[in-house]
Amino acid sequence: MTREATPLPGVPGVGVTEAIAADVPAIVALLANDILGRDRESGVSDLYDEAFAAIDADPTEHLLVLLDEQESVVGTLQLGFVRSLSRGGALRAQIEAVRVSETLRGQGVGRALFTFVIEQARQEGAVLVQLTSDLQRDGAIRFYESLGFVHSHAGLKLALG
Amino acid sequence: MTREATPLPGVPGVGVTEAIAADVPAIVALLANDILGRDRESGVSDLYDEAFAAIDADPTEHLLVLLDEQESVVGTLQLGFVRSLSRGGALRAQIEAVRVSETLRGQGVGRALFTFVIEQARQEGAVLVQLTSDLQRDGAIRFYESLGFVHSHAGLKLALG
Repeated sequence: MTREATPLPGVPGVGVTEAIAADVPAIVALLANDILGRDRESGVSDLYDEAFAAIDADPTEHLLVLLDEQESVVGTLQLGFVRSLSRGGALRAQIEAVRVSETLRGQGVGRALFTFVIEQARQEGAVLVQLTSDLQRDGAIRFYESLGFVHSHAGLKLALG
Repeated sequence: MTREATPLPGVPGVGVTEAIAADVPAIVALLANDILGRDRESGVSDLYDEAFAAIDADPTEHLLVLLDEQESVVGTLQLGFVRSLSRGGALRAQIEAVRVSETLRGQGVGRALFTFVIEQARQEGAVLVQLTSDLQRDGAIRFYESLGFVHSHAGLKLALG
């Protein structure tokens, strides 16, 4: 690889690194290739590049990609950090927009990616990692529970018209 | 009032404004005065002031307080903004650490505060407001649903040891 990426333990040939602007179309394609994402991602929004620039400029947000040996983007996840006064002024890590390429499903890639990201969160001093998962995604919720996440909260969303 | 605060519509004598460092002890007291918060907030953490400074320095996070006519802190809420590539590169608003003083319960203060904050989120260009609420807080979840929030997601948390 010419791009530097941290090898993902247990998943030969796959590395994780911060996304660059050129990854945006591949990330959007992953987000769109999903039963729930299909209706949400047109793939042609000018906002994607603008959004990438905003994430890239924000020191509390990290857009990660998984790269295979051909340096193709085969997974993505956004790791953010939020400080609040609750829980003793604790730092929380928050995960958004997780996708792994269909071609890599069932090979432990998601588990290896989360193990990596949870360790990153710990090193940054987070006391908690939080995420929400659509209640329709049974399998995803079971996967997160198998990693030690507890389904203790309701995830509520209000769409602004 | 000597501090400037935006009057909260429908709630005479209560205004909303950004928190200042001197508000931190009162905010922590509100967070602690709660069936679930009680065990989480010692009230003596050095981290509270550090956390306030971090929130204050972060342009994407807004710690709000409600002030009464005596300029006492009678409510708090943290409004943050997260950009991600999902949903067309949309900006999301996220709400954390909501509390209203027991002395003001049942007077529509929470509803007025959320109406204000949802309007702020809309003006910032957010397409979605998201929050999680402990599944034990039946009343809170019903309150959010009455505001139009949809309980579509599981809120999953992983405590880091």
